[in-house]
Amino acid sequence: MMILSTIAELRKVVVKAKSSGQSIGLVPTMGYLHEGHLTLAKNAREENDVVVMSIFVNPTQFGPNEDFESYPRDLERDKKLAASVGVDYIFAPSVEEMYPHDGGIYIRAGRQAQTLCGASRPSHFDGVLQVVAKLFNLVQPDRAYFGQKDAQQVAIIQTMVRDYNFPVELRVVPVVREEDGLAKSSRNVYLSSIERMQAPVIQQALQIAKLELMDSGDVDKALSQATKIIEHNTAGKIDYLSILTYPDLKEVDEKSDQILLAAAVYIGKTRLIDNLILSLKGELIHV
Amino acid sequence: MMILSTIAELRKVVVKAKSSGQSIGLVPTMGYLHEGHLTLAKNAREENDVVVMSIFVNPTQFGPNEDFESYPRDLERDKKLAASVGVDYIFAPSVEEMYPHDGGIYIRAGRQAQTLCGASRPSHFDGVLQVVAKLFNLVQPDRAYFGQKDAQQVAIIQTMVRDYNFPVELRVVPVVREEDGLAKSSRNVYLSSIERMQAPVIQQALQIAKLELMDSGDVDKALSQATKIIEHNTAGKIDYLSILTYPDLKEVDEKSDQILLAAAVYIGKTRLIDNLILSLKGELIHV
Repeated sequence: MMILSTIAELRKVVVKAKSSGQSIGLVPTMGYLHEGHLTLAKNAREENDVVVMSIFVNPTQFGPNEDFESYPRDLERDKKLAASVGVDYIFAPSVEEMYPHDGGIYIRAGRQAQTLCGASRPSHFDGVLQVVAKLFNLVQPDRAYFGQKDAQQVAIIQTMVRDYNFPVELRVVPVVREEDGLAKSSRNVYLSSIERMQAPVIQQALQIAKLELMDSGDVDKALSQATKIIEHNTAGKIDYLSILTYPDLKEVDEKSDQILLAAAVYIGKTRLIDNLILSLKGELIHV
Repeated sequence: MMILSTIAELRKVVVKAKSSGQSIGLVPTMGYLHEGHLTLAKNAREENDVVVMSIFVNPTQFGPNEDFESYPRDLERDKKLAASVGVDYIFAPSVEEMYPHDGGIYIRAGRQAQTLCGASRPSHFDGVLQVVAKLFNLVQPDRAYFGQKDAQQVAIIQTMVRDYNFPVELRVVPVVREEDGLAKSSRNVYLSSIERMQAPVIQQALQIAKLELMDSGDVDKALSQATKIIEHNTAGKIDYLSILTYPDLKEVDEKSDQILLAAAVYIGKTRLIDNLILSLKGELIHV
């Protein structure tokens, strides 16, 4: 496995792969790898000749009061983990390498970014689209791998790929969980042991909401049950708890065939997200 | 030469060229071809295995009161002209084919788009970047050809390519002119015979400004001379007449090494643009 820290090195690898007809799989990450990332990489390994994993904590997707500085980083550990699942190249550029200029041209995410995480992180998805567009242009992957845990991110990137005709196939991989149901996240390391014990309640609350929704079809009732479960079983503060169509992220109505149940909860100072996607296949939902 | 009207047809051509290692040159146009476009195509023909010319009057770069509906179109004539200079494929999609969805994700041009044409056409360059990004992703050209006549457009696209790492080389081709100096433009067909006689004054005024600038280095004096020439010799209304650094489009100072002299003038109802670029190579300019 090779580590590429400059765009010039990466371009050479890409040109060589392309000119010899090899397919490229891209796994974009912010590092501090966990099993979720490794599952993306394993999928990429199975489906492509060359696997490039990017490791870049992208400053433009963090708000001014967010955890960009303290976001966990451990490239040495990441190298070993990436090598263990067959990654060929890690692209780990500096911030200066990725953003040497600011010509003032920005991609603005649309309506899909106004809700859920976008409501409390106003320019987060603009930054995500900026770095993803750059990575797509740099790596020119045949396939790019994203985790369903970031369901809103996946929906918005799908829209960009569709509306801007990026020549890449998005591959979306299910959420990888701890044994107690907590979604794997690089931010889980922030949790104290008491917080760690409370954190799986987020997923449990979503499961209860799902059952209520499938039983009664009542969105408000499902949300209020999930809210109670989180409030009674954690010291957490709910950022949002929402039921929306997927991937449009609109209000649920009778015609919805995929539904997202999504939550963001502050467990102590750590903001965790999780979700479930329900495929209704024509079952009536009362709203 | 083949005409491609769908993205699916275009993708097949691109995949075939790429997989056989052929280079692709893209000439993006809005059609109603003139010698300027044909010069771009001839350059593309010399430097690439496959030449794709897009012909698409892009609605998103026209303002609500601009000439999108009346913009001149003649695909049959364009086909003959394109074939005569060796274009392999014309990509001429419908508006519905290019914009079947609106997911609300937009590229916003930055500071470079606030001046010159951008000042009177507020979202023009956002629309240009949108369609150019789509064309780059669809055609995946090795080289793309633009005319220096649209100097501001070239500067802004260069910034997007640089800041978003599009894997394409921009090739910028000098302005092609009529014998009397009028820059070739699809919009020249709008001119009445009297207007046509007045139109070359725009270029003459820029030449006078250039001489004044090289002589005295006085930006204001150069601009006021050019203004007088246009006002005294045409019935035209000046939209702007500016001297800025190139490609940054900032105010000229002692360090500037490339300077753009640019004008947009309404000759009757027809808005014409023209420019000159001065390479100063260290000569002092007084501002």
